Amino acid sequence: MSLTTQLHVLGQAAREAARFLAGLSTEEKNRALLAMADQILASQEEILAANEEDLKVGREKNLSAPLLDRLTLTPARLQGIIASIHQAAFLPDPIGKILAEWKREDGLAFQKMSVPLGVIGIIYESRPNVTVDAAILCLKAGNACLLRGGSEAFHTNTALATSLQLALKATHFPEACIQLVPTTDRAAIPILCEMEEHLDCIIPRGGKALIETVVRHARMPVIKHNDGICAAYIDQEANLKMASELVFNAKHQRPSACNALETVLLHEKIATEFLKTAGKKLLQEGVELRCSSELLALVPDSLRKEFSQQIKKASKEDFRTEFLALTLALKTVASVEEAIDHITGHGSHHSDLIVTENQQTAEQFLREVDSATVYWNASTRFTDGGEFGFGAEIGISTGKFHARGPMGLAELTSYKYLIRGHGQIRK
Amino acid sequence: MSLTTQLHVLGQAAREAARFLAGLSTEEKNRALLAMADQILASQEEILAANEEDLKVGREKNLSAPLLDRLTLTPARLQGIIASIHQAAFLPDPIGKILAEWKREDGLAFQKMSVPLGVIGIIYESRPNVTVDAAILCLKAGNACLLRGGSEAFHTNTALATSLQLALKATHFPEACIQLVPTTDRAAIPILCEMEEHLDCIIPRGGKALIETVVRHARMPVIKHNDGICAAYIDQEANLKMASELVFNAKHQRPSACNALETVLLHEKIATEFLKTAGKKLLQEGVELRCSSELLALVPDSLRKEFSQQIKKASKEDFRTEFLALTLALKTVASVEEAIDHITGHGSHHSDLIVTENQQTAEQFLREVDSATVYWNASTRFTDGGEFGFGAEIGISTGKFHARGPMGLAELTSYKYLIRGHGQIRK
Repeated sequence: MSLTTQLHVLGQAAREAARFLAGLSTEEKNRALLAMADQILASQEEILAANEEDLKVGREKNLSAPLLDRLTLTPARLQGIIASIHQAAFLPDPIGKILAEWKREDGLAFQKMSVPLGVIGIIYESRPNVTVDAAILCLKAGNACLLRGGSEAFHTNTALATSLQLALKATHFPEACIQLVPTTDRAAIPILCEMEEHLDCIIPRGGKALIETVVRHARMPVIKHNDGICAAYIDQEANLKMASELVFNAKHQRPSACNALETVLLHEKIATEFLKTAGKKLLQEGVELRCSSELLALVPDSLRKEFSQQIKKASKEDFRTEFLALTLALKTVASVEEAIDHITGHGSHHSDLIVTENQQTAEQFLREVDSATVYWNASTRFTDGGEFGFGAEIGISTGKFHARGPMGLAELTSYKYLIRGHGQIRK
Repeated sequence: MSLTTQLHVLGQAAREAARFLAGLSTEEKNRALLAMADQILASQEEILAANEEDLKVGREKNLSAPLLDRLTLTPARLQGIIASIHQAAFLPDPIGKILAEWKREDGLAFQKMSVPLGVIGIIYESRPNVTVDAAILCLKAGNACLLRGGSEAFHTNTALATSLQLALKATHFPEACIQLVPTTDRAAIPILCEMEEHLDCIIPRGGKALIETVVRHARMPVIKHNDGICAAYIDQEANLKMASELVFNAKHQRPSACNALETVLLHEKIATEFLKTAGKKLLQEGVELRCSSELLALVPDSLRKEFSQQIKKASKEDFRTEFLALTLALKTVASVEEAIDHITGHGSHHSDLIVTENQQTAEQFLREVDSATVYWNASTRFTDGGEFGFGAEIGISTGKFHARGPMGLAELTSYKYLIRGHGQIRK
């Protein structure tokens, strides 16, 4: 059987499973979820053994320490995965909600009701917990899923998917509700992207190259999870102590996250003061500061001497870069308008922040910055489904279509109109 | 300048215009709309002359009478276009709405607010009123648009777009808020489809070939307006008089519409009775009935004799065909489940109808048929933005993503999250 045929067989089965899932009650879906949690616990040994196999290959391939860490499962991490399944079971069902209803004068009654999207393809890299997270959120929203994980986690993903399917079988669900593409052949990606009859949408989670491949080939809608090039603008009327804490938190707490800060725009009137206090703290905690030439001229000699290795001249490219590391690009601006222009031209429309005590300036920034989340006096690190109170997250959309920002269960649904009459015809 | 460069220049200008539009008040947008209505009236002679030019070419090319009719503008039709602009001005602004808001225990305040999508590409065929309809709805929702009309209407579209841009200029709006692609070269379509940096989404309105081309090339989201293969299931517990009226209205009132009926599924217990009454009426009014072989055997001799030219055996393909004419495919089914299965396998997820007096059967059909609009005892012809009360319609989406069914102003928006704090950091 060719790879194309093989994938179409999976797609066809997923389509049928989706029809089954769309008809289920909340209780039936939750019963399957709880069975999955139990089964993962029961299969713990097999899963950890499969993970050890992946780690062995990874070490032989000289994968970096952070990559190996992301790949690693432990009993504690499995416990975290099981807890997230329980959490999903307790979330409210996003399906069957009446989103709007109205009646015409002729008595025709309209209801707009949430329904599943259908079949969702998810193409992701490295972290095996995505296999479970994505599968359970899709199932809770009544969707079948077709998962294509990274080759580094292939054995782990296979073991996890096997567990999930065992639980589906035990609860008399079609196993095709959750399917893992059983190959690491890269040729599978364009084939999946062209299966528009079987997949209602596709979610790529990973690096630029993966997203670019998916966008180029996909014939169905794509929910992109692109770079987070997040900026903070520190206004002349900012509380500088607050600015220092927010910038430090947003840059330092987890630099590898997409909602971490990459750029700081300093109003020229407070730039020197910011460098003396916040700048010093960042340098002390190991952050490298790449400064525009105007800003570089303002760096106090004392700092320049003490942290000569960490203070550099920024290149143009630095202001379009997601460093994912303890590096920050900084420049001065003359006004909030200049800050907004910079963000419009350089950012990735993910999460941007203004620090100011002036409400009018803040509201202008909130209004004019066209990003998924725009903050006033709070860390960009809150861009996260959990922090938003969504209970779970399948990713963060950087597109403006269908879903924007953190995606919870509601973003995995569509809707339909139910129209009830008593013989009305159109005149 | 190459076509690619030319289109990218338009795209870049549209992107800048979109930023301008996003910042406008409702009053400013409405002022521009009213100026457009005035300008179209003022330019009436030029527009009708341009239309006459298109009609002349069309007649030389032997375009069919219905196509020529769709292409024709008259003072009365221009009046209709002007009225629809006034109507758009009076519709509520879909932008800046607070769709949800909540506060965390730590005081962080979240608002989800509607914002424009940005730049919308619309590729359409034949009817020149789309040029104005699409442009004004995009503008009302704060979006810039790039329009690519059909070659048959090129002169008319150019004259209309010129009027709209004159009005934009007079109200100090950038002309790039509304741009018509100034060429009929088909090569423009794939180029537009790849301009993801300039276009936030693309709406193809037209035949299968156009939609297929756009889906294949588009790198941005596509809102498809596909076939309407709409079915009516007449249950054994149907009021047959109502069934007859609904089927007749849905098939006969405007057979060229996408929400017109193409398929009738008759419960075998009422099939003969339906043929005798509703069937006879359809035949008398000129409808051709293509019947499955089971149904054909049930046709009364009297009908068979009188309407021998209009009663035919249906092919398999007839049940997957959008006739857009006075033709109907009919077959018998043994149950509501069989009807739902048929619709799932043959329909286009547009609009489907059950006629029954049994509420339980109706609710099963409403729940299990996965179409944009599902009707109980009402004509499928109501699938229309105007009939839904949306005030205006940019089309009917047959996709499940972002927008489904009739699309009004709300479907031309995205949203963003505004988050206001007082120094909150993530722990």
